[in-house]
Amino acid sequence: MTGATGFIGSHVLPMLAARGFEVHASTRRTDAPVTPGVTWHPGDLLHGAESDRLMRLVRPTHLLHLAWYVQPGAFWAAPENVSWVAASLALLQSFHRSGGRRAVVTGTCAEYDLDGGPCREGVTPLAPATLYGAAKHGLHVVGEAYTRSVGMSLAWGRVFLLYGPGEPAGRLVPAITRALLLGVPAPCSRGEQRRDFLHVVDVAAALALLVEGEVDGPVDIASGVAVPVREVVSTIAGIIGRPELVQWGAMPSPEGDPALIVGDPTRLTQELAWRPTRSLPDGLADTVAWWRDRLEHPESLTRSQPT
Amino acid sequence: MTGATGFIGSHVLPMLAARGFEVHASTRRTDAPVTPGVTWHPGDLLHGAESDRLMRLVRPTHLLHLAWYVQPGAFWAAPENVSWVAASLALLQSFHRSGGRRAVVTGTCAEYDLDGGPCREGVTPLAPATLYGAAKHGLHVVGEAYTRSVGMSLAWGRVFLLYGPGEPAGRLVPAITRALLLGVPAPCSRGEQRRDFLHVVDVAAALALLVEGEVDGPVDIASGVAVPVREVVSTIAGIIGRPELVQWGAMPSPEGDPALIVGDPTRLTQELAWRPTRSLPDGLADTVAWWRDRLEHPESLTRSQPT
Repeated sequence: MTGATGFIGSHVLPMLAARGFEVHASTRRTDAPVTPGVTWHPGDLLHGAESDRLMRLVRPTHLLHLAWYVQPGAFWAAPENVSWVAASLALLQSFHRSGGRRAVVTGTCAEYDLDGGPCREGVTPLAPATLYGAAKHGLHVVGEAYTRSVGMSLAWGRVFLLYGPGEPAGRLVPAITRALLLGVPAPCSRGEQRRDFLHVVDVAAALALLVEGEVDGPVDIASGVAVPVREVVSTIAGIIGRPELVQWGAMPSPEGDPALIVGDPTRLTQELAWRPTRSLPDGLADTVAWWRDRLEHPESLTRSQPT
Repeated sequence: MTGATGFIGSHVLPMLAARGFEVHASTRRTDAPVTPGVTWHPGDLLHGAESDRLMRLVRPTHLLHLAWYVQPGAFWAAPENVSWVAASLALLQSFHRSGGRRAVVTGTCAEYDLDGGPCREGVTPLAPATLYGAAKHGLHVVGEAYTRSVGMSLAWGRVFLLYGPGEPAGRLVPAITRALLLGVPAPCSRGEQRRDFLHVVDVAAALALLVEGEVDGPVDIASGVAVPVREVVSTIAGIIGRPELVQWGAMPSPEGDPALIVGDPTRLTQELAWRPTRSLPDGLADTVAWWRDRLEHPESLTRSQPT
């Protein structure tokens, strides 16, 4: 597993260990949470020979590759996206050469043409508008052809929007939640764009099912429900009880921001029997509770920051 | 320039030098032809740090990247395709970091959905059926988004079928030509599939124009004319005067082989004023003459083999 200390990874890790996998997790961190059934391997996958070294050492049967450049805001256009394509291809090759059988890699809804309405894997055209989306799409094109050519199984989990405990602080839900908990104004856009938000635990559960399963090809990881961003913000404000701090329209919507991003979890529900476990209000409530705890006990913050 | 000792590269190299470029060519060979205006740089671009070293040394304004894994037959499905995607992305990044301004990279007609009739850049869906095609397509997806994000100019020359002096011996035209010149039987398929064949000198001229020019995006490098493979073989047999040695139907057509592969040189002719200089009969005649010379003077063979 790569990216195991990240936002999604930190939720998948204990699920895989609980299902009986002997989990080996690569990390660039010098400390990592002690988790039963998990062996940590320090190293940087962007360094040429690291994939080979790690794969020869562990000889894994399954690979869950989540690591990527994820700096909030910057990740859309950062050149690191290109380096991660190259590193991910090296990882897949090392994995195969070491006897690997099944790989699960995360893609993104940003691979799709997002101006064409609801998305669905295998139907919606792939026309990424960002370097991040193009990098993931290009990796999928090459990775799928490569794994097919060597007879390896690959599932490509296309993650839509998500939120929950451990989300990097610069993003929407944490930004609003922290501001309102701290009692300071929270500038927002008008929030009219509709988005498909899934709780990170449900994203993680989908990925754990994919690792265990035999489903191949692209699989959208989405709720299937489009909610106005305004509703997400209002719900958080209602839970915290500070709706007057939300400054609607104080921030512009990013140029070219699609009006609607929504996926279709049909493959996930029909082929993997996946069911989301949290409604949006419940999920936002546990997220607010998590941030309240972190703000009251700031010494625990570093434990849950993604790398 | 990469791939400068290859089939296409060896023809582009003198054209660029003749146009006044100070040409720096990377090669894995330990010997290379002495060419006026050309500096050779030994090294292997598949080795991690090589791109950076080379780019920091040369600081080129333009990049023509032709190097790839090209072993006849094997290249369609070889894992080296994946390594070349990673190496090519590293090369583009190093080029940009060293101040590079314009890159020209070669793609392939195998990126297209070849079952849908004539191909044209920007119109025909990209649906590669092979690892080679997928690797080139994936590289283009990432490379185009990356170069756009950093403000670098990229032209993607999609090469269709080609032939001419220096073609690797395992491919169709050299195989038939050598057999007939040596007076041994030449087994063929029935040759009903139609293909777009361009003389390597005309392919090279298109690439040299692309390097010099400012055209961005994909540009098909094709004749626009579909010729039955049977006609190519018959023409060679007629030139050599040994039509009785051709064994029609002795070899099966590869499974899934498209009935038609033909491109459209409209961008090339309209935006770059490119004109092909050789008809198919003339081009095949000079190719036969080249092989005749090589077979009569075998010591010269090694000089013209692609790496």
